[in-house]
Amino acid sequence: MDIYLDNAATSHPKPPCVVEAVVRALTQINANPGRSGHKRAIAGAEALMECRQVLARMLAAPDPMAISFAFNCTDALNLAIKGCLQPGDHVVSTRLEHNAVLRPLMTLQEMGLVEVTLADPAPDGFVTPEALRAALKKRTRLCVVGHASNVTGAIQPVAAIGGMLWEAGVPYLIDGAQALGIQPVDVGALRCAMYAFPGHKGLLGPQGTGGLYLDPGFALGTLREGGTGSSSESMLQPQERPERYESGTMNLHGIAGLLAGAQYVLENELRLRAQERTRTAQLMEGLLGVPGITLYGDPDPRNRVGVVSFNVGDEPSGAVADALDRLGFAVRGGLHCAPGIHSWLGTLERGAVRASPGHATTAQEIDLFVEAVRRIAREGSDRIP
Amino acid sequence: MDIYLDNAATSHPKPPCVVEAVVRALTQINANPGRSGHKRAIAGAEALMECRQVLARMLAAPDPMAISFAFNCTDALNLAIKGCLQPGDHVVSTRLEHNAVLRPLMTLQEMGLVEVTLADPAPDGFVTPEALRAALKKRTRLCVVGHASNVTGAIQPVAAIGGMLWEAGVPYLIDGAQALGIQPVDVGALRCAMYAFPGHKGLLGPQGTGGLYLDPGFALGTLREGGTGSSSESMLQPQERPERYESGTMNLHGIAGLLAGAQYVLENELRLRAQERTRTAQLMEGLLGVPGITLYGDPDPRNRVGVVSFNVGDEPSGAVADALDRLGFAVRGGLHCAPGIHSWLGTLERGAVRASPGHATTAQEIDLFVEAVRRIAREGSDRIP
Repeated sequence: MDIYLDNAATSHPKPPCVVEAVVRALTQINANPGRSGHKRAIAGAEALMECRQVLARMLAAPDPMAISFAFNCTDALNLAIKGCLQPGDHVVSTRLEHNAVLRPLMTLQEMGLVEVTLADPAPDGFVTPEALRAALKKRTRLCVVGHASNVTGAIQPVAAIGGMLWEAGVPYLIDGAQALGIQPVDVGALRCAMYAFPGHKGLLGPQGTGGLYLDPGFALGTLREGGTGSSSESMLQPQERPERYESGTMNLHGIAGLLAGAQYVLENELRLRAQERTRTAQLMEGLLGVPGITLYGDPDPRNRVGVVSFNVGDEPSGAVADALDRLGFAVRGGLHCAPGIHSWLGTLERGAVRASPGHATTAQEIDLFVEAVRRIAREGSDRIP
Repeated sequence: MDIYLDNAATSHPKPPCVVEAVVRALTQINANPGRSGHKRAIAGAEALMECRQVLARMLAAPDPMAISFAFNCTDALNLAIKGCLQPGDHVVSTRLEHNAVLRPLMTLQEMGLVEVTLADPAPDGFVTPEALRAALKKRTRLCVVGHASNVTGAIQPVAAIGGMLWEAGVPYLIDGAQALGIQPVDVGALRCAMYAFPGHKGLLGPQGTGGLYLDPGFALGTLREGGTGSSSESMLQPQERPERYESGTMNLHGIAGLLAGAQYVLENELRLRAQERTRTAQLMEGLLGVPGITLYGDPDPRNRVGVVSFNVGDEPSGAVADALDRLGFAVRGGLHCAPGIHSWLGTLERGAVRASPGHATTAQEIDLFVEAVRRIAREGSDRIP
C-alpha cells in the first residue's frame, strides 16, 4: 500500500461511516430529494436538510437554509463571484489564490465586464488588511480571499480582513477549500457574506459535493437555473433559498456521505486539529533536516494548515514527485493550479512538491516519507528505481 | 418494500455493479483525477477516460474528448445554452420543455439578453420540424428540443428536426434527460451540435453525474472556470477539451458508478428496451381500463419512453400520489417542473400523477399498481388508510 500525502487534493481514506452512508443512500433511499412526495423522496430531502444543519453548525451559520449545495468548491466560487458582480464593478483579490478564484475573475475581466486588482502578500506570505484596503476603489463590490493557501498552507488573517471590509462596506467571499473542517470557522465573526467550501477535502466527504454559505441578508444572481421542485408553475427561477441556487437533481448519495464526514469531523474536531498540527510540524522539521531542501512558506507550523511544499536541490518538482511515487508515496508535483503564488515564490518553472498529511496519517508514515526525500536528495531522483 | 415507479426522477434500484464501482472508487482509488501524477490519481484519470469512451460509444460520438462531465443534466444544459448564446441572439424551443431548459432561457430573456420563441406542439403532443422552422428568425443561434417529454413521454422526431435545422444552419441542442440509455442515440444522424444528459436516470448511474456531448467543430464559452489540472501557469481557462468545460474536482466516485451503469445498459440494451416498452404498454392498457381515468399523451406506447401521466376522476394529483404512497407505490404527483406542457394539457392547477417503470419493474408490480389505482378510483383517495 502506498502512503497517501495528497490530502490537499482529496482526503483519503474516507472514514468507514462515509462509505456506509453513501451505500445506504444509493441502495436504500435512492430517490430524487425534493421532487416527489413518496417515502424515499422524503427520506432524501431529510438527509439534505440534516446535512445543511451540520454544515451550518460547523460554520456557526444562523440558518441551515443559508447553505446551498454545489458540485464542488469551484462551482460554489463561480456562483458567488458571478452572482455578485455586475458590469462595471471592481473586485479585489490576491496573487495567492487558486485558479478556482483567479480564472472566473480573469474571464470576467477579459470580457471587459469587471476590473480585477490582485494584492500582493507581505514578504512572509500573509495578506494584510492594509494591502487589501489600499486596493479598494469606490466601485469595489467584492473582495475574495482564500482562508488558507493550497501551496504554502498559510492561514490568512481572515477575521482582521473581514473587519476591515466590513467597515469599508465591501462584501467578502472566503475560499475555504483548504480550511473548512481543519480550521475553526465562524461566518459571523469573520464578517463574510459568503464562504465557499468543498465536501471532499477537510470534511472527509465524497467528491461531487461542496457548498456555499450565503448571508441571509445578501442576494445573488443565479449561475444555473432549472427544476428546483418548487414553484414548478413558473418558468422563472424561484426566489426561495436554498432552492434558488440548487437547480437540477442534487447529489443525494454524495451529500449523505458528506453528512457522515462532517459529523465525524465535528465529533473528533479537537483530536483531528491537534493531530494535523503535530504531523505538519514533524514533517516540516524532518524536511528542514534534509540537505539541499527548500521549504516554502512560514516556518512556524502553527501558521499553516497541513500543506507543505518544497523542492530538492535543483531537481524539477515533477521528477521528485515521480520518484516518491515509485517509492510508494502519493504527493503532488508541478504547479498547483495557483500561478500567482508560484510566480511570487519563483517556482513558476519547476513547480514544487506538495505533501499534505491527513486525518489518518501516522507519525511513522511521516518518518518514512522524510527518509525517502533524504534518499532522493542524496541519490538524485533519476537513480530511484 | 415499496414498488418504485419514479424512474423518470431517478432510476432505482441501481444495478449491483454500480454500487460496487462507487465503493471501489471511494475506498481503493479515491484521488483527484488529472491533478497529481501518482498511481491513485492516474487510476482516477483512467476511470474518467474509460467512462468518456463508453458514453461516446453510446452516443455514437466520434471522439471521447467530445464528452464533458457535469454536475447533472441541468448543469450541462446551462453550459450549452449560456456558452452558445450571445446578447441579441434569438433562440427557439418548445412549450413542452422541462424547466432545466425553460428557466435558463427565460432568465436570459428577462435580463434582456436574448429573445425566446416557444413553439407549440401539434395536437398529438409532438413537435414538428415545420412548427420549429416557422419560429426561426435570421438571428436564431440555437434551437433546444427535449428528446422525450418528462410528462407525456412523447418521443420527439429529433432526427427530422435535426435535418431541418442543419439545412437552416441553426445549432441544435437536445435535452436527453429522459432518453439516453432508453432510446438509441446517434449524434451524427441527429445532426445535433450538443446533447445533454443525466447520469442517474437511464444510464443507471449515481446522482451528481451527467454530461454534455459537444461537436468537436462547435465552440462554447464557459460557465464555470477554475483549476483543470492543465495549463496551470495561466490565470485564464484553457482551450483544450474537455478540461475547458470541467473545472474543479470531478466526481470520480460518481463517474466510476456511471461507467458501470452505462456499461450495464450497453450490454443489456435490447433486453432493457423491449422490457421498457412491454411494461409501458401493460401500464397504459391497465390504466385505460380504470373507470374515470384520464391518460395524457399519445395512446401508442411505441411513441413514448416509459413515462405515463394520468389523473383519476376529479381528484388532485397530489392526493392520488399520496394515497399510492400509503399503499406502497412510489410515484410523483403535482407539476413536473414543466409548466408549459401542464398549461398545454390543462393540468396547471391539479398536476398529474406520473408513473415511470424502470429496468427492474416486473409485470406483477404493474398489475398491483393498476389494481391500486382502480381502488383509489373506486373508493376515493381520502378513504385509503
